[in-house]
Amino acid sequence: MTPNTTAYAQLMAFQRQTEALAQIAGRLGWDQETMMPRGAAEQRSEEMGAIEGVLHARRSDPRIADWLDQALAEDDEAAAQLRLIRRAHARATRVPADLAQELARLTSMSQGIWAEARAADDVAAFLPTLDQVIRLKRDEAAALAQGGDLYDALLDDYEPGATAAGLAAMFGRLRPRLVALREAILDAPRQPAALTGSFGTEAQLRLARRLATAFGYDWNRGRLDLAVHPFSSGSGNDARITTRTSETDPFNCFYSTIHEVGHACYELGIDPDYLLTPLGAGVSMGVHESQSRIYENQLGRSRAFTGWMFGRMVETFGHAGAPDAEAFYCAVNRVHPGFIRTEADEVHYNLHVLMRFDLERALIRGDLAVGDLEAAWNDRFAADFGLAVDRPSNGMLQDVHWSVGLFGYFPTYTLGNVYAGCLHRALRDAVPDLDDHLAQGDATPATEWLRENVQRHGGLFQPRDLISRACGFAPDEGPLLDYLEAKFRPLYGL
Amino acid sequence: MTPNTTAYAQLMAFQRQTEALAQIAGRLGWDQETMMPRGAAEQRSEEMGAIEGVLHARRSDPRIADWLDQALAEDDEAAAQLRLIRRAHARATRVPADLAQELARLTSMSQGIWAEARAADDVAAFLPTLDQVIRLKRDEAAALAQGGDLYDALLDDYEPGATAAGLAAMFGRLRPRLVALREAILDAPRQPAALTGSFGTEAQLRLARRLATAFGYDWNRGRLDLAVHPFSSGSGNDARITTRTSETDPFNCFYSTIHEVGHACYELGIDPDYLLTPLGAGVSMGVHESQSRIYENQLGRSRAFTGWMFGRMVETFGHAGAPDAEAFYCAVNRVHPGFIRTEADEVHYNLHVLMRFDLERALIRGDLAVGDLEAAWNDRFAADFGLAVDRPSNGMLQDVHWSVGLFGYFPTYTLGNVYAGCLHRALRDAVPDLDDHLAQGDATPATEWLRENVQRHGGLFQPRDLISRACGFAPDEGPLLDYLEAKFRPLYGL
Repeated sequence: MTPNTTAYAQLMAFQRQTEALAQIAGRLGWDQETMMPRGAAEQRSEEMGAIEGVLHARRSDPRIADWLDQALAEDDEAAAQLRLIRRAHARATRVPADLAQELARLTSMSQGIWAEARAADDVAAFLPTLDQVIRLKRDEAAALAQGGDLYDALLDDYEPGATAAGLAAMFGRLRPRLVALREAILDAPRQPAALTGSFGTEAQLRLARRLATAFGYDWNRGRLDLAVHPFSSGSGNDARITTRTSETDPFNCFYSTIHEVGHACYELGIDPDYLLTPLGAGVSMGVHESQSRIYENQLGRSRAFTGWMFGRMVETFGHAGAPDAEAFYCAVNRVHPGFIRTEADEVHYNLHVLMRFDLERALIRGDLAVGDLEAAWNDRFAADFGLAVDRPSNGMLQDVHWSVGLFGYFPTYTLGNVYAGCLHRALRDAVPDLDDHLAQGDATPATEWLRENVQRHGGLFQPRDLISRACGFAPDEGPLLDYLEAKFRPLYGL
Repeated sequence: MTPNTTAYAQLMAFQRQTEALAQIAGRLGWDQETMMPRGAAEQRSEEMGAIEGVLHARRSDPRIADWLDQALAEDDEAAAQLRLIRRAHARATRVPADLAQELARLTSMSQGIWAEARAADDVAAFLPTLDQVIRLKRDEAAALAQGGDLYDALLDDYEPGATAAGLAAMFGRLRPRLVALREAILDAPRQPAALTGSFGTEAQLRLARRLATAFGYDWNRGRLDLAVHPFSSGSGNDARITTRTSETDPFNCFYSTIHEVGHACYELGIDPDYLLTPLGAGVSMGVHESQSRIYENQLGRSRAFTGWMFGRMVETFGHAGAPDAEAFYCAVNRVHPGFIRTEADEVHYNLHVLMRFDLERALIRGDLAVGDLEAAWNDRFAADFGLAVDRPSNGMLQDVHWSVGLFGYFPTYTLGNVYAGCLHRALRDAVPDLDDHLAQGDATPATEWLRENVQRHGGLFQPRDLISRACGFAPDEGPLLDYLEAKFRPLYGL
C-alpha cells in the first residue's frame, strides 16, 4: 500500500480523541489536588485507573501501527505529528502490559510509603519499596532501550533527544563554577537581610493575581487556586495554575505563582492549530522548565521587576518587609545554604539537581545500592553545600520523584535553567528596553518574545533545536553562569 | 453454556470501569458549570464528546450481551445488578448509532439556539430546532419502544416502570384539588407579607453551609460552590452541591442548597457495597426528587425548622427580613402566582409540571404541532393559573428541557413531590418528635430515617416498590394533598 492522506486523517482523528481524554485525566488530577473532598480519595484512584486504562489501550492500539505505516505527511508539521505519535506508540507498546500495570500499582502505593517514611524520618521504612521501584524501572528501561543505555531510555521520556553523557559533560562544567560562586557569596562581607514581618494570606493571593496578569497570563483560559504543592495543569485553552501561602513568607506564594504562570503561558501560547494534537503541548520538561524559570528568576527576580513589586507590596500590606526597593531586591535574591531543593535560591538550586542526577544514574546503572544511597547523598551534600544533613527528611527523603519512579526527570530542571539562561540573553538582545517595561510591572514584552520564538511551536522541533533557533546560538551553560555571576557578585559586594 | 459466576465477575469488573468513567464525565460537567475558564468552552465540548464516545462504546459493547447470557446471579442483589445492566445495554444497543450521534449533535447545538431565542423572546427562532428535536426523539422512542408507547419509552429512561397512563390518572386527581387550593388561597383575607431587606451574599453562603450541615450533609465527601443554575453532581464518595445568591432573595440560596443537599444525601447514603456498580446510584428521577423535595419543603419549610432559621437569620444578617418567627414562616411559604416553574411555591409547582406533561405527551404523540405549542401553553396557563402569559420567556421558552431532548423528564418532578408526601407521612409516624429536633436546627433524624428506608438501597428495588416498602402503603397523591391543605389553609386563615 502506498502512503496516503486517508490513513493520516484517520490516525489524527483517533489521536485527537486520545488527546482530549488525556486532558480529562489531567483535569481530574487538578481536581484531586485542589477541589476534591478528602473522603473521595479511594474512589478517585479507581476513577484514575479507569481513565488511564482507556488511555493506555488507545496509545497501544494496533491500528496506530497500521496507520503509521500508511500515513502520508504532506508537510513538516504533519511529519512532526507522525514523529511524536510514532514515539509515543513505541513507548506504549515496548513495555509489556504486565510490567506497566505492576509499575502503576507499585508507584501508586509507594508514594504513600515514602510520605510516611519522610514524616517519620525513617529511611529503612522506604528502602525496600525504593528498591522494588528501581528494579521495575530498570526493567522498563531495558524494554524501552532495546540494547541502548538504560538511563537514556528513561530520560528520553522527559527530554527527547537528550543523553546522560551530554548532560553529564555540561553539568561537569557547571558544577565547579557554581560551587565557587556559592563559596564566594557565603564568605562575602555584605550579607543582605531577609524579609521581615507578617503578610495576610488573602492579600497575598490578590497580589499573586496581579503578578500573573503582569506576565500576561490569560485569565479567560485559566484560573488560580490553592494547592499544597503548587503545580500547573492542562493545555490548549484550559491551563490552570496553583499556589500556596505562608504568612511569614509571601515570596513562596509570589514566585510559585510566577513559576506556574511560566508553565501555563507556554501551554497557552502554543499555536491554536495544534489544539488536541501531539504538537499541542510543551515539547519537553527541560523547555517547560526554561519558561517557568525565566519568568520566575531572570524576569521576576530582576531589579526592575522587584522595584515595581516593592511598590505593590507597600500598597497591599502597608509595608514591604524591607526598608526600600534595593533592600527588597536583595531580600528576594538572598543566597542561603539549605537542605531543601524546592526552597533553594538561584545559586544553590542546580547543585541540588546535579547531585540527584549523579545519584540516580548510579542507581539505575546498578553502581549504587539503595542501602548505600543515604551515605552517598550525605557525603555529596557535605562536599557541595558544606552542610551535614541533620535528618533524612532534609536529605534523601525530601523529594517525591524517586518514590513514584520519576528517574531521568531531575536533570531537566537544570537543563531548563541552562535554556532559560540562553533565552534570557537572546531576549535581552531582542528587547533592549525590557527593564523599562518590567519596572512598570509589565512583563508581557517578554511573554510575547517567548511566545513567538519558543511557545507557539509546541512539539514541532526537537527541544535543543527549538532553543537554538530561538537564541541564534547552540545552547550551553555559559549564559546561565554569566547571568548568575553578573547578578550575585555585585549584590554581595564582590 | 450454563450460567456461571465467572461471567458475572467479568461483567461486573467491566461495568465497574464504565461506572468510574461515568463518574469522571459527571465531574467534568460539574467543572464546566463551576470552575471552567470561559475560554475553554469549545475545547471542553470536544473533551466531553470524547468521553461520551468511550462510554457509549462500553455500554453497547457486544461482550455485555454474552456475559449477560452466561452470568449467574447468586442472590437478589446480583439479580438486580444484572437487571440494571441488561436495561442499560438494551437502551444503548436499540438506538442506531447514527441516530444517537445525530441526537447528540443536535441537542448540543439546540440548547444554544433555545437560550438565544429565550433571551430575544423569539419563539419562531426556536421552533424549527424544536421540531427537529421532537422528530429525532420520536425516532429514538420508536427504536426503544419496539411497538410499545412512544412516550412511555422516553419516560422509562427517567422513571423505570412508570407509564404515562398511570401518571395521567394520578395527575388527573391531583389537578382539581390543587387548583381549588390555589384559588382559595389567593382569595383568602389574610395575605402574608414577603421578605424585606437586603442580605449579604457572603453571609448567605455561610448560612447555607450551616443549613447543609443541619441536614447531615457529609462535607468530607462533598463541597458547595456557586453555579448559575444550582445542581448536584456525583455519587459514591464525591457528591457535590451548588447554589446561587441574590441580595434581595436569600431563600433562593437557602432552599436551592437544601434541595441539592437532598439529592446529594441520597447518593451519599447508598450502601457503600454498591460503590461504582449499577446499584450505586439513585434509582430514578422521581425518587431523587422525592429526597430533594422532602428536604426542601416538608422539612426545610416547616414551622419548626424555619423557627430555628429565623434565629440564625438574625444572628447572620442582624435581621430576618420579617418581624418574628411566625411572620418569617409565612414569608417562606408565601403563595403567589407566577410564570416561572423554578420560582413556584409548593401549591403552584405541580400545576406547572402537569401542564408540561400534557403538552409534551401531545407533542410526542403527534397530537400537537410545534406551531400550535405556544397557544396551547398560554391557554392552559390561563386556565390553571388565571394569568395571561406576557412573553414567551415567561411561557413556553422558560425551560431548557425540551431543547435538549428531555421529553419524559417533567412528570418525575411531580411524582417526586407525591413520593415526598408519602414519605413525609411515614417519617412523621416513625419519628414523632421530629419537630423538636427541627426546632433545634437538627434534621439528621429525618436523614437517618430516609437513609435507612430509601437512600441506602440505591437501585435495588423498582422505584414504586421502594417507596411502598419505605412507607408501608402504596404511594398515591393523597398524602401530598393532605399535607398541602393542612399546611396552607391555616397559614392563609382558611
